[in-house]
Amino acid sequence: MATEITYEQLNVLNARYAQCIDDDRLEQWPDFFLDDCLYKITNAENHRQGMAAGIVYADSKGMLQDRVSALREANVYERQSYRHIVSMPVIGEPVQGRVSVETAFLVVRIMRGGKTDLFATGKYVDQVAQDASGALKFAERIVICDSISIDTLLAIPL
Amino acid sequence: MATEITYEQLNVLNARYAQCIDDDRLEQWPDFFLDDCLYKITNAENHRQGMAAGIVYADSKGMLQDRVSALREANVYERQSYRHIVSMPVIGEPVQGRVSVETAFLVVRIMRGGKTDLFATGKYVDQVAQDASGALKFAERIVICDSISIDTLLAIPL
Amino acid sequence: MATEITYEQLNVLNARYAQCIDDDRLEQWPDFFLDDCLYKITNAENHRQGMAAGIVYADSKGMLQDRVSALREANVYERQSYRHIVSMPVIGEPVQGRVSVETAFLVVRIMRGGKTDLFATGKYVDQVAQDASGALKFAERIVICDSISIDTLLAIPL
Repeated sequence: MATEITYEQLNVLNARYAQCIDDDRLEQWPDFFLDDCLYKITNAENHRQGMAAGIVYADSKGMLQDRVSALREANVYERQSYRHIVSMPVIGEPVQGRVSVETAFLVVRIMRGGKTDLFATGKYVDQVAQDASGALKFAERIVICDSISIDTLLAIPL
Repeated sequence: MATEITYEQLNVLNARYAQCIDDDRLEQWPDFFLDDCLYKITNAENHRQGMAAGIVYADSKGMLQDRVSALREANVYERQSYRHIVSMPVIGEPVQGRVSVETAFLVVRIMRGGKTDLFATGKYVDQVAQDASGALKFAERIVICDSISIDTLLAIPL
Repeated sequence: MATEITYEQLNVLNARYAQCIDDDRLEQWPDFFLDDCLYKITNAENHRQGMAAGIVYADSKGMLQDRVSALREANVYERQSYRHIVSMPVIGEPVQGRVSVETAFLVVRIMRGGKTDLFATGKYVDQVAQDASGALKFAERIVICDSISIDTLLAIPL
Protein backbone atom coordinates (compact mmCIF):
# COMPACT_ATOMS: atom_id res chain seq x y z
CA MET A 1 0.00 0.00 0.00
CA ALA A 2 2.66 2.46 1.10
CA THR A 3 5.06 1.12 -1.51
CA GLU A 4 6.65 3.76 -3.64
CA ILE A 5 5.50 3.99 -7.26
CA THR A 6 8.49 4.22 -9.57
CA TYR A 7 8.96 6.10 -12.82
CA GLU A 8 9.57 2.83 -14.61
CA GLN A 9 6.31 1.34 -13.32
CA LEU A 10 4.39 4.32 -14.67
CA ASN A 11 6.06 3.98 -18.04
CA VAL A 12 5.18 0.31 -18.15
CA LEU A 13 1.59 1.10 -17.19
CA ASN A 14 1.29 3.68 -19.97
CA ALA A 15 2.89 1.32 -22.49
CA ARG A 16 0.61 -1.59 -21.60
CA TYR A 17 -2.47 0.63 -21.71
CA ALA A 18 -1.63 1.82 -25.22
CA GLN A 19 -0.71 -1.68 -26.37
CA CYS A 20 -4.04 -3.05 -25.11
CA ILE A 21 -6.02 -0.59 -27.23
CA ASP A 22 -3.82 -0.75 -30.30
CA ASP A 23 -3.87 -4.56 -30.25
CA ASP A 24 -7.67 -4.38 -30.12
CA ARG A 25 -7.87 -6.24 -26.81
CA LEU A 26 -10.57 -3.82 -25.64
CA GLU A 27 -12.14 -6.32 -23.26
CA GLN A 28 -9.01 -5.99 -21.10
CA TRP A 29 -9.02 -2.20 -21.18
CA PRO A 30 -11.30 -1.67 -18.13
CA ASP A 31 -8.82 -3.70 -16.05
CA PHE A 32 -6.44 -0.76 -16.13
CA PHE A 33 -8.85 1.08 -13.83
CA LEU A 34 -9.92 0.76 -10.21
CA ASP A 35 -13.56 -0.30 -9.69
CA ASP A 36 -14.28 3.22 -8.53
CA CYS A 37 -12.70 5.38 -11.17
CA LEU A 38 -13.09 8.35 -13.41
CA TYR A 39 -12.43 8.18 -17.13
CA LYS A 40 -13.19 11.20 -19.20
CA ILE A 41 -12.33 12.50 -22.65
CA THR A 42 -12.55 16.24 -23.02
CA ASN A 43 -10.70 19.02 -24.81
CA ALA A 44 -8.40 21.73 -23.56
CA GLU A 45 -10.93 24.51 -23.99
CA ASN A 46 -13.74 22.77 -22.10
CA HIS A 47 -11.28 21.66 -19.43
CA ARG A 48 -10.10 25.25 -18.90
CA GLN A 49 -13.69 26.40 -18.53
CA GLY A 50 -14.33 23.73 -15.92
CA MET A 51 -16.97 21.91 -17.94
CA ALA A 52 -17.44 18.59 -16.23
CA ALA A 53 -19.22 16.66 -18.93
CA GLY A 54 -16.63 15.82 -21.53
CA ILE A 55 -17.13 13.91 -24.75
CA VAL A 56 -16.91 10.59 -22.95
CA TYR A 57 -17.60 10.14 -19.25
CA ALA A 58 -17.49 7.05 -17.05
CA ASP A 59 -17.19 6.84 -13.29
CA SER A 60 -16.97 3.12 -12.72
CA LYS A 61 -15.28 0.12 -14.23
CA GLY A 62 -18.74 -1.21 -15.11
CA MET A 63 -19.40 1.80 -17.32
CA LEU A 64 -16.13 1.18 -19.10
CA GLN A 65 -17.15 -2.42 -19.73
CA ASP A 66 -20.50 -1.26 -21.11
CA ARG A 67 -18.65 1.06 -23.43
CA VAL A 68 -16.57 -1.78 -24.78
CA SER A 69 -19.71 -3.84 -25.41
CA ALA A 70 -21.24 -0.92 -27.29
CA LEU A 71 -18.08 -0.52 -29.37
CA ARG A 72 -18.10 -4.19 -30.26
CA GLU A 73 -21.70 -3.99 -31.42
CA ALA A 74 -20.92 -0.90 -33.48
CA ASN A 75 -18.01 -2.78 -35.07
CA VAL A 76 -15.95 0.38 -35.21
CA TYR A 77 -12.75 -1.61 -34.92
CA GLU A 78 -13.53 -3.49 -38.09
CA ARG A 79 -12.89 -0.39 -40.08
CA GLN A 80 -9.88 1.17 -38.43
CA SER A 81 -7.07 0.74 -35.96
CA TYR A 82 -5.06 3.07 -33.79
CA ARG A 83 -1.48 3.65 -32.78
CA HIS A 84 -0.71 5.48 -29.56
CA ILE A 85 2.66 7.14 -29.11
CA VAL A 86 3.16 8.06 -25.48
CA SER A 87 5.76 10.54 -24.28
CA MET A 88 7.58 10.69 -20.93
CA PRO A 89 5.41 11.33 -17.85
CA VAL A 90 5.69 14.19 -15.40
CA ILE A 91 4.98 12.95 -11.89
CA GLY A 92 3.64 14.92 -8.95
CA GLU A 93 3.97 14.27 -5.24
CA PRO A 94 2.09 11.23 -3.89
CA VAL A 95 -0.96 12.16 -1.78
CA GLN A 96 -2.69 9.49 0.28
CA GLY A 97 -1.26 6.68 -1.80
CA ARG A 98 -2.14 8.34 -5.10
CA VAL A 99 0.26 9.84 -7.58
CA SER A 100 -0.63 12.56 -10.09
CA VAL A 101 0.84 11.95 -13.50
CA GLU A 102 0.69 13.94 -16.72
CA THR A 103 1.71 12.39 -20.02
CA ALA A 104 1.57 13.75 -23.56
CA PHE A 105 0.20 11.44 -26.22
CA LEU A 106 -0.42 11.28 -29.94
CA VAL A 107 -2.81 8.90 -31.67
CA VAL A 108 -2.67 7.95 -35.32
CA ARG A 109 -5.67 6.33 -37.02
CA ILE A 110 -5.17 3.77 -39.74
CA MET A 111 -8.15 3.03 -41.97
CA ARG A 112 -8.69 -0.44 -43.34
CA GLY A 113 -7.80 0.76 -46.83
CA GLY A 114 -4.41 1.93 -45.59
CA LYS A 115 -4.98 5.66 -45.18
CA THR A 116 -3.18 6.98 -42.12
CA ASP A 117 -3.83 10.26 -40.36
CA LEU A 118 -3.01 12.13 -37.19
CA PHE A 119 -6.15 11.51 -35.17
CA ALA A 120 -5.60 13.20 -31.82
CA THR A 121 -2.99 14.74 -29.55
CA GLY A 122 -3.29 15.78 -25.97
CA LYS A 123 -2.33 14.82 -22.46
CA TYR A 124 -3.40 12.28 -19.91
CA VAL A 125 -4.00 13.78 -16.48
CA ASP A 126 -3.99 10.78 -14.20
CA GLN A 127 -4.35 9.69 -10.62
CA VAL A 128 -2.56 6.38 -10.25
CA ALA A 129 -2.98 4.10 -7.24
CA GLN A 130 -2.33 0.53 -6.18
CA ASP A 131 -5.24 -1.87 -5.90
CA ALA A 132 -5.58 -4.42 -3.08
CA SER A 133 -3.11 -6.74 -4.82
CA GLY A 134 -0.56 -3.98 -5.25
CA ALA A 135 -1.07 -3.62 -9.00
CA LEU A 136 -1.00 -0.10 -10.46
CA LYS A 137 -4.36 1.15 -11.70
CA PHE A 138 -5.90 4.40 -12.83
CA ALA A 139 -8.11 5.96 -10.19
CA GLU A 140 -8.58 8.75 -12.72
CA ARG A 141 -7.60 9.21 -16.33
CA ILE A 142 -8.70 12.52 -17.81
CA VAL A 143 -7.88 12.62 -21.50
CA ILE A 144 -7.51 16.24 -22.54
CA CYS A 145 -7.41 16.52 -26.32
CA ASP A 146 -5.70 19.56 -27.78
CA SER A 147 -8.14 20.13 -30.60
CA ILE A 148 -11.77 21.15 -30.25
CA SER A 149 -12.70 19.26 -33.38
CA ILE A 150 -12.48 15.62 -32.53
CA ASP A 151 -14.04 13.17 -34.87
CA THR A 152 -17.56 12.37 -33.78
CA LEU A 153 -16.77 8.73 -34.30
CA LEU A 154 -14.83 9.05 -31.10
CA ALA A 155 -16.28 6.39 -28.91
CA ILE A 156 -12.93 4.74 -28.95
CA PRO A 157 -10.67 4.68 -25.92
CA LEU A 158 -7.82 7.12 -26.03
CA MET B 1 25.31 -13.96 -19.92
CA ALA B 2 22.78 -14.43 -17.16
CA THR B 3 22.83 -10.70 -16.38
CA GLU B 4 19.43 -9.15 -16.15
CA ILE B 5 18.40 -6.84 -18.98
CA THR B 6 16.98 -3.62 -17.56
CA TYR B 7 14.20 -1.37 -18.84
CA GLU B 8 16.67 1.46 -19.22
CA GLN B 9 19.02 -0.64 -21.34
CA LEU B 10 16.16 -1.46 -23.71
CA ASN B 11 15.22 2.20 -23.98
CA VAL B 12 18.80 3.08 -24.76
CA LEU B 13 18.97 0.32 -27.37
CA ASN B 14 15.80 1.59 -29.06
CA ALA B 15 17.01 5.18 -28.96
CA ARG B 16 20.42 4.34 -30.44
CA TYR B 17 18.84 2.23 -33.16
CA ALA B 18 16.57 5.08 -34.23
CA GLN B 19 19.39 7.62 -34.00
CA CYS B 20 21.63 5.47 -36.21
CA ILE B 21 19.05 5.40 -39.01
CA ASP B 22 17.94 9.02 -38.68
CA ASP B 23 21.56 10.22 -38.67
CA ASP B 24 22.08 8.24 -41.87
CA ARG B 25 24.81 6.07 -40.35
CA LEU B 26 23.35 3.04 -42.10
CA GLU B 27 26.66 1.18 -42.22
CA GLN B 28 26.41 0.81 -38.43
CA TRP B 29 22.81 -0.38 -38.51
CA PRO B 30 23.58 -4.13 -38.93
CA ASP B 31 25.65 -3.96 -35.72
CA PHE B 32 22.43 -3.75 -33.73
CA PHE B 33 21.78 -7.37 -34.65
CA LEU B 34 23.30 -10.72 -33.73
CA ASP B 35 25.10 -12.53 -36.58
CA ASP B 36 22.22 -14.99 -36.65
CA CYS B 37 19.17 -12.81 -36.63
CA LEU B 38 15.79 -12.17 -38.14
CA TYR B 39 14.78 -8.78 -39.47
CA LYS B 40 11.47 -8.46 -41.18
CA ILE B 41 9.12 -5.70 -42.21
CA THR B 42 5.51 -6.74 -42.62
CA ASN B 43 2.07 -5.34 -41.97
CA ALA B 44 -0.54 -6.15 -39.36
CA GLU B 45 -2.83 -7.96 -41.78
CA ASN B 46 -0.15 -10.23 -43.23
CA HIS B 47 1.22 -10.86 -39.76
CA ARG B 48 -2.22 -11.94 -38.49
CA GLN B 49 -2.55 -14.33 -41.41
CA GLY B 50 0.81 -15.85 -40.59
CA MET B 51 2.43 -14.87 -43.88
CA ALA B 52 6.13 -15.39 -43.39
CA ALA B 53 7.48 -13.38 -46.27
CA GLY B 54 7.07 -9.76 -45.37
CA ILE B 55 8.06 -6.75 -47.41
CA VAL B 56 11.64 -6.99 -46.29
CA TYR B 57 13.23 -10.17 -44.99
CA ALA B 58 16.75 -10.86 -43.76
CA ASP B 59 17.98 -13.71 -41.59
CA SER B 60 21.60 -12.83 -41.08
CA LYS B 61 23.71 -9.79 -40.37
CA GLY B 62 25.33 -10.29 -43.78
CA MET B 63 21.98 -9.83 -45.51
CA LEU B 64 21.47 -6.59 -43.60
CA GLN B 65 24.87 -5.37 -44.76
CA ASP B 66 23.97 -6.25 -48.36
CA ARG B 67 20.79 -4.25 -47.98
CA VAL B 68 22.73 -1.20 -46.85
CA SER B 69 25.04 -1.50 -49.84
CA ALA B 70 22.03 -1.67 -52.15
CA LEU B 71 20.51 1.38 -50.50
CA ARG B 72 23.71 3.33 -50.94
CA GLU B 73 23.83 2.48 -54.62
CA ALA B 74 20.21 3.50 -55.02
CA ASN B 75 21.00 6.80 -53.31
CA VAL B 76 17.62 6.86 -51.64
CA TYR B 77 19.00 8.79 -48.72
CA GLU B 78 20.02 11.63 -50.98
CA ARG B 79 16.42 12.54 -51.46
CA GLN B 80 14.89 12.08 -48.03
CA SER B 81 15.49 11.57 -44.37
CA TYR B 82 13.56 9.97 -41.56
CA ARG B 83 12.68 10.67 -37.98
CA HIS B 84 11.73 7.82 -35.65
CA ILE B 85 9.71 8.50 -32.55
CA VAL B 86 9.78 5.50 -30.27
CA SER B 87 7.33 4.93 -27.45
CA MET B 88 7.82 3.03 -24.18
CA PRO B 89 8.47 -0.71 -24.49
CA VAL B 90 6.42 -3.54 -23.01
CA ILE B 91 8.71 -6.30 -21.84
CA GLY B 92 7.94 -10.00 -21.49
CA GLU B 93 9.56 -12.63 -19.34
CA PRO B 94 13.12 -13.61 -20.26
CA VAL B 95 13.37 -17.10 -21.82
CA GLN B 96 16.79 -18.69 -22.23
CA GLY B 97 18.58 -15.39 -22.02
CA ARG B 98 16.25 -13.68 -24.49
CA VAL B 99 13.70 -11.03 -23.69
CA SER B 100 10.59 -10.33 -25.75
CA VAL B 101 9.94 -6.64 -26.20
CA GLU B 102 7.16 -4.76 -28.00
CA THR B 103 7.50 -1.08 -28.77
CA ALA B 104 5.24 1.28 -30.70
CA PHE B 105 6.91 3.56 -33.25
CA LEU B 106 6.12 6.33 -35.66
CA VAL B 107 8.28 7.39 -38.57
CA VAL B 108 8.12 10.74 -40.30
CA ARG B 109 9.67 11.21 -43.73
CA ILE B 110 11.24 14.54 -44.67
CA MET B 111 11.82 15.16 -48.37
CA ARG B 112 14.81 17.16 -49.51
CA GLY B 113 12.53 20.05 -50.51
CA GLY B 114 11.17 20.27 -46.98
CA LYS B 115 7.89 18.40 -47.30
CA THR B 116 7.18 16.34 -44.20
CA ASP B 117 4.71 13.50 -43.89
CA LEU B 118 3.70 10.72 -41.58
CA PHE B 119 5.40 7.77 -43.23
CA ALA B 120 4.68 4.74 -41.08
CA THR B 121 3.40 3.64 -37.70
CA GLY B 122 3.50 0.23 -36.12
CA LYS B 123 5.22 -1.83 -33.52
CA TYR B 124 8.53 -3.57 -33.13
CA VAL B 125 8.20 -7.14 -31.92
CA ASP B 126 11.68 -8.00 -30.72
CA GLN B 127 13.80 -10.70 -29.22
CA VAL B 128 16.70 -9.05 -27.45
CA ALA B 129 19.78 -10.92 -26.27
CA GLN B 130 23.33 -10.28 -25.15
CA ASP B 131 26.17 -11.10 -27.48
CA ALA B 132 29.44 -12.70 -26.34
CA SER B 133 30.72 -9.36 -25.06
CA GLY B 134 27.53 -8.69 -23.10
CA ALA B 135 26.21 -5.99 -25.45
CA LEU B 136 22.48 -5.96 -26.18
CA LYS B 137 21.53 -6.97 -29.70
CA PHE B 138 18.43 -7.87 -31.63
CA ALA B 139 18.09 -11.59 -32.19
CA GLU B 140 14.82 -10.70 -33.90
CA ARG B 141 13.20 -7.45 -34.90
CA ILE B 142 9.85 -7.91 -36.63
CA VAL B 143 8.56 -4.54 -37.79
CA ILE B 144 4.78 -4.73 -38.04
CA CYS B 145 3.43 -1.70 -39.86
CA ASP B 146 -0.16 -0.71 -39.17
CA SER B 147 -1.06 0.23 -42.71
CA ILE B 148 -1.30 -2.13 -45.66
CA SER B 149 -0.23 0.58 -48.05
CA ILE B 150 3.40 1.22 -47.40
CA ASP B 151 5.33 3.19 -49.91
CA THR B 152 7.00 0.90 -52.40
CA LEU B 153 10.14 2.93 -51.95
CA LEU B 154 10.43 1.16 -48.66
CA ALA B 155 13.82 -0.41 -48.77
CA ILE B 156 14.78 1.76 -45.88
CA PRO B 157 15.28 0.37 -42.39
CA LEU B 158 12.43 1.00 -40.00
CA MET C 1 28.23 18.85 -8.26
CA ALA C 2 29.90 15.56 -9.03
CA THR C 3 26.59 13.72 -8.60
CA GLU C 4 25.78 11.38 -11.42
CA ILE C 5 22.98 12.43 -13.77
CA THR C 6 20.59 9.54 -14.28
CA TYR C 7 18.60 8.50 -17.32
CA GLU C 8 15.40 9.04 -15.41
CA GLN C 9 16.36 12.60 -14.47
CA LEU C 10 16.97 13.43 -18.12
CA ASN C 11 13.60 11.98 -19.09
CA VAL C 12 11.91 14.04 -16.40
CA LEU C 13 13.77 17.16 -17.57
CA ASN C 14 12.64 16.59 -21.17
CA ALA C 15 9.08 15.89 -20.09
CA ARG C 16 8.84 19.00 -17.91
CA TYR C 17 10.35 21.16 -20.64
CA ALA C 18 7.75 19.99 -23.15
CA GLN C 19 4.93 20.32 -20.62
CA CYS C 20 5.93 23.88 -19.82
CA ILE C 21 5.65 24.96 -23.46
CA ASP C 22 2.53 22.95 -24.28
CA ASP C 23 0.77 24.28 -21.15
CA ASP C 24 1.63 27.80 -22.31
CA ARG C 25 3.63 28.58 -19.18
CA LEU C 26 6.27 30.31 -21.30
CA GLU C 27 7.41 32.60 -18.50
CA GLN C 28 8.88 29.53 -16.79
CA TRP C 29 10.61 28.27 -19.92
CA PRO C 30 13.89 30.23 -19.43
CA ASP C 31 14.27 28.56 -16.03
CA PHE C 32 15.18 25.33 -17.79
CA PHE C 33 18.47 26.98 -18.80
CA LEU C 34 21.61 28.06 -17.01
CA ASP C 35 22.20 31.84 -16.90
CA ASP C 36 25.01 31.35 -19.39
CA CYS C 37 23.48 29.16 -22.02
CA LEU C 38 23.04 28.55 -25.69
CA TYR C 39 19.65 28.01 -27.26
CA LYS C 40 19.44 27.72 -30.98
CA ILE C 41 16.95 26.52 -33.56
CA THR C 42 18.46 25.48 -36.86
CA ASN C 43 17.92 22.83 -39.50
CA ALA C 44 19.88 19.73 -40.42
CA GLU C 45 21.30 21.20 -43.62
CA ASN C 46 22.56 24.42 -42.04
CA HIS C 47 23.91 22.46 -39.10
CA ARG C 48 25.86 20.15 -41.40
CA GLN C 49 27.36 23.15 -43.17
CA GLY C 50 28.44 24.61 -39.83
CA MET C 51 26.30 27.73 -40.13
CA ALA C 52 26.28 29.26 -36.69
CA ALA C 53 23.34 31.59 -37.00
CA GLY C 54 20.26 29.45 -36.88
CA ILE C 55 16.66 30.58 -37.12
CA VAL C 56 16.58 31.47 -33.45
CA TYR C 57 19.66 32.24 -31.40
CA ALA C 58 20.06 33.15 -27.73
CA ASP C 59 23.15 32.92 -25.56
CA SER C 60 21.82 33.95 -22.17
CA LYS C 61 18.78 33.35 -20.03
CA GLY C 62 17.99 37.06 -20.37
CA MET C 63 17.66 36.72 -24.13
CA LEU C 64 15.25 33.84 -23.62
CA GLN C 65 13.17 36.00 -21.30
CA ASP C 66 13.13 38.79 -23.89
CA ARG C 67 11.91 36.30 -26.44
CA VAL C 68 9.03 35.27 -24.23
CA SER C 69 8.05 38.92 -23.76
CA ALA C 70 8.08 39.41 -27.51
CA LEU C 71 5.95 36.32 -28.01
CA ARG C 72 3.43 37.56 -25.49
CA GLU C 73 3.17 40.90 -27.25
CA ALA C 74 2.74 39.16 -30.59
CA ASN C 75 -0.03 37.04 -29.06
CA VAL C 76 0.96 34.06 -31.13
CA TYR C 77 -0.26 31.69 -28.46
CA GLU C 78 -3.77 33.08 -28.74
CA ARG C 79 -4.13 31.46 -32.09
CA GLN C 80 -2.48 28.09 -31.66
CA SER C 81 -1.06 25.55 -29.28
CA TYR C 82 1.59 22.87 -29.51
CA ARG C 83 2.11 19.31 -28.46
CA HIS C 84 5.63 17.93 -28.08
CA ILE C 85 6.20 14.22 -28.24
CA VAL C 86 9.68 13.40 -27.01
CA SER C 87 11.44 10.12 -27.68
CA MET C 88 14.08 8.34 -25.59
CA PRO C 89 17.41 10.14 -25.15
CA VAL C 90 20.83 8.90 -26.14
CA ILE C 91 23.39 9.97 -23.54
CA GLY C 92 27.09 10.55 -24.02
CA GLU C 93 29.91 10.44 -21.53
CA PRO C 94 29.96 13.21 -18.91
CA VAL C 95 32.75 15.76 -19.44
CA GLN C 96 33.55 18.25 -16.70
CA GLY C 97 30.16 17.86 -15.09
CA ARG C 98 28.27 18.18 -18.36
CA VAL C 99 26.44 15.43 -20.16
CA SER C 100 25.74 15.39 -23.90
CA VAL C 101 22.25 14.22 -24.72
CA GLU C 102 20.46 13.72 -28.02
CA THR C 103 16.71 13.28 -28.15
CA ALA C 104 14.33 12.99 -31.10
CA PHE C 105 11.17 15.08 -30.96
CA LEU C 106 8.00 15.74 -32.91
CA VAL C 107 5.80 18.80 -32.52
CA VAL C 108 2.18 19.00 -33.57
CA ARG C 109 0.48 22.38 -33.97
CA ILE C 110 -3.19 22.79 -33.13
CA MET C 111 -4.93 25.85 -34.51
CA ARG C 112 -7.66 27.54 -32.54
CA GLY C 113 -10.26 26.32 -35.03
CA GLY C 114 -9.26 22.72 -34.42
CA LYS C 115 -6.99 22.03 -37.38
CA THR C 116 -4.05 19.87 -36.40
CA ASP C 117 -0.84 19.37 -38.34
CA LEU C 118 2.61 17.95 -38.02
CA PHE C 119 4.63 21.09 -37.38
CA ALA C 120 8.22 20.00 -36.89
CA THR C 121 10.44 17.01 -36.26
CA GLY C 122 14.07 16.91 -35.35
CA LYS C 123 16.47 16.30 -32.53
CA TYR C 124 17.63 18.15 -29.46
CA VAL C 125 21.41 18.19 -29.12
CA ASP C 126 21.94 19.17 -25.49
CA GLN C 127 24.56 19.85 -22.90
CA VAL C 128 22.98 19.25 -19.50
CA ALA C 129 24.55 20.38 -16.24
CA GLN C 130 23.64 20.95 -12.62
CA ASP C 131 23.24 24.49 -11.34
CA ALA C 132 24.50 25.65 -7.93
CA SER C 133 21.47 24.09 -6.23
CA GLY C 134 21.97 20.78 -7.97
CA ALA C 135 19.00 21.16 -10.33
CA LEU C 136 19.41 19.94 -13.91
CA LYS C 137 19.54 22.72 -16.50
CA PHE C 138 20.38 23.08 -20.15
CA ALA C 139 23.80 24.62 -20.70
CA GLU C 140 23.04 24.16 -24.39
CA ARG C 141 19.98 23.12 -26.32
CA ILE C 142 20.49 23.06 -30.08
CA VAL C 143 17.22 22.28 -31.81
CA ILE C 144 17.98 20.73 -35.18
CA CYS C 145 14.85 20.57 -37.30
CA ASP C 146 14.75 17.95 -40.04
CA SER C 147 13.00 20.08 -42.62
CA ILE C 148 14.45 23.14 -44.31
CA SER C 149 11.00 24.69 -44.64
CA ILE C 150 9.97 25.69 -41.17
CA ASP C 151 7.04 27.99 -40.81
CA THR C 152 8.24 31.59 -40.62
CA LEU C 153 5.90 32.06 -37.69
CA LEU C 154 8.46 30.09 -35.78
CA ALA C 155 9.30 32.32 -32.88
CA ILE C 156 7.90 29.70 -30.61
CA PRO C 157 10.11 27.58 -28.40
CA LEU C 158 10.70 24.06 -29.63
